[in-house]
Amino acid sequence: MADLSTCPPLTRASVVEAHKLVKPHVHYTPVLTNKTLTALASTPRNVEDLKGTKWEGRTPAKPVLRLWFKCENLQRIGAFKVRGAFHAVERLKQEPGWLENGGKEKGVVTHSSGNHAQALALAAKESGIPAHIVMPNISPPNKIAATRGYGANVVFSGSTSVEREAVADSVIAETGARLVPPYDHPDIMLGQGTMGLELQEQVRDLMAAGHSAANPTFNSTGLPLSDSKSGIKGLNAIMTPCGGGGMLSGVALSCEGTGIRVFGAEPEFEGADDCKRGFEAGKRVESVKTLTIADGLRTPVGKHPWSVIYERRLVENMFSVSEEEIKAATKLVFERFKLVVEPSGAVPLAVALFNEDFRAMVEREAGEEGWDLGLVFSGGNVAIEGLLKIFAA
Amino acid sequence: MADLSTCPPLTRASVVEAHKLVKPHVHYTPVLTNKTLTALASTPRNVEDLKGTKWEGRTPAKPVLRLWFKCENLQRIGAFKVRGAFHAVERLKQEPGWLENGGKEKGVVTHSSGNHAQALALAAKESGIPAHIVMPNISPPNKIAATRGYGANVVFSGSTSVEREAVADSVIAETGARLVPPYDHPDIMLGQGTMGLELQEQVRDLMAAGHSAANPTFNSTGLPLSDSKSGIKGLNAIMTPCGGGGMLSGVALSCEGTGIRVFGAEPEFEGADDCKRGFEAGKRVESVKTLTIADGLRTPVGKHPWSVIYERRLVENMFSVSEEEIKAATKLVFERFKLVVEPSGAVPLAVALFNEDFRAMVEREAGEEGWDLGLVFSGGNVAIEGLLKIFAA
Repeated sequence: MADLSTCPPLTRASVVEAHKLVKPHVHYTPVLTNKTLTALASTPRNVEDLKGTKWEGRTPAKPVLRLWFKCENLQRIGAFKVRGAFHAVERLKQEPGWLENGGKEKGVVTHSSGNHAQALALAAKESGIPAHIVMPNISPPNKIAATRGYGANVVFSGSTSVEREAVADSVIAETGARLVPPYDHPDIMLGQGTMGLELQEQVRDLMAAGHSAANPTFNSTGLPLSDSKSGIKGLNAIMTPCGGGGMLSGVALSCEGTGIRVFGAEPEFEGADDCKRGFEAGKRVESVKTLTIADGLRTPVGKHPWSVIYERRLVENMFSVSEEEIKAATKLVFERFKLVVEPSGAVPLAVALFNEDFRAMVEREAGEEGWDLGLVFSGGNVAIEGLLKIFAA
Repeated sequence: MADLSTCPPLTRASVVEAHKLVKPHVHYTPVLTNKTLTALASTPRNVEDLKGTKWEGRTPAKPVLRLWFKCENLQRIGAFKVRGAFHAVERLKQEPGWLENGGKEKGVVTHSSGNHAQALALAAKESGIPAHIVMPNISPPNKIAATRGYGANVVFSGSTSVEREAVADSVIAETGARLVPPYDHPDIMLGQGTMGLELQEQVRDLMAAGHSAANPTFNSTGLPLSDSKSGIKGLNAIMTPCGGGGMLSGVALSCEGTGIRVFGAEPEFEGADDCKRGFEAGKRVESVKTLTIADGLRTPVGKHPWSVIYERRLVENMFSVSEEEIKAATKLVFERFKLVVEPSGAVPLAVALFNEDFRAMVEREAGEEGWDLGLVFSGGNVAIEGLLKIFAA
């Protein structure tokens, strides 16, 4: 990984620079709207639905929400993670002496069994450099095959983080490969933040073209408008999932100075809402052990992301949802939107639909005019069998 | 339904007219591409994969196919059926004397438990006229609720077609409502054909913008280009699913005189390939009894569609696939495209990927240059539970 001292400052301008590096390598994923989901988000929940929840007895909130979805489930490798991976690799390649010192032969290494593994494997492959991916030996065969499918050298380890890091260290000692961590690094954060820039621009383009989230029509070929966008309001707020916080912090940077408010969404199961708890305690929660179905969000928020999310207050607040609410949101996206999202990617929608604290805040602050809210479908990597397991349970 | 004698002629120009009536009411659904599926379609199958099929021992074909998908699964009510329903209702409203004779109060009627029921209910609702939908009393509660959700009056009947028609007749006798059949009528065919016009135009726009199905980038806001499209080749061929044949015949009309070749795709299970068998026998197969998982394609092709598809030779040929091939295609769309299609909607993709007769024909006729092939994802109305049932089996 690029040395921290050489990293660009964590600013919106750096995200704009990162976008130039990343854009040729990633899909400019569509922003879609859905009349049914927007109507549902703007309908107060039934009093009975709040029974048995922490909001029992409260009058259901009446927010007005117009939802805009950034479809990173349609991204390369099926998730936003390619943005950070490509950015990290491109930055390494720009490092003075990288080529001369054999950087191209030494390659890159990471330990991950998830989307980051495939993202780094792809980014390395397209630059013609080796990628060593340390995976727990209990990883599902399809994930191992997918990572190898991108040309990576898969190295097995035990499943604890100590075991995985030890194997990564020995790969580094043997090969000289550079470590590319999944989220806790400025280059990764800036790369993921490029998605926030696109979302802002696309919503403005769609609004300029007369598209409304409350009464959308699908468009087709998808080229941004060059017309004047003066007088176009754009988004009021963006909410992204939060696992390690790479995406949330990057998107928050992409919004700095724009007036767009940023929120994070987490599962609450078994303490997966570590960033929310960190907000409440004023201190980062450093370890988490949860088996939430939102398996991309099981990690604690990293130190660098935390500095942006909390210490610089670029994220206004965190909200969490239950496993049942995540399931319900995933199902709605499937059945009403006809899109496949992995449970982690449906967490922000679950907050918008079901979290009465969030909904009451929108009602209070936005009134009848409501908010145009950008939500990130962060990934779509769930096999049919995985979905079966979740919904059979 | 509009009297046959008053119907426009079955020509491309009539489809263009129909599009003017239908366009304000339906989504201009996106045309998407997918690198993985295009690569898969252009890769010869393994010799072992042909074992146990009717192509065992044959050398696998080597077609070059670039796939363009018209996403009618993202259409209103989740399927293309709204096109025909809106067209039929708009045409009724244009009929001389319709308003004076109480047409608005008498409303419309159909018998359907599928997508056509919801499509007609929606079209009627938006014109402020009543819709009576005859549904078998064994219909799934969610389908009944969805149809009622669009404001329709649901009338129950027995489940045979004789029982359903008898109840529809008595509704007509009581209310004076006009019958809108699901496919066997020129107004429905012309309405469904509007999707073919869009597909042709969108692919030309995308090609003009430099988009290739073999190496696509997703676009975002989706407005058609107004640039010159001279020199843009467009599609070589389109393949749609074929049940009653309303869509296939309409799309064939939309292609007449354009040089675009049209093919139909059917399930082969329990004789569901009635149109293919009709082609071989030179005579329409008038009844079918099949429980194929492609439940939108269980009906025999209608008389009016047949006149276009076969008698006028506007469809070049029919191809069929097995239940396993339909499942595999549905799964690929889910896992690699992150889109939900119902099994019926995945049948053309299954032909493109797995039918060696089709693939050998493309290899023979298109050579190394290959074909740009438009495939229709006709609908996405499958509940998660429905998907579970299909894939658990």
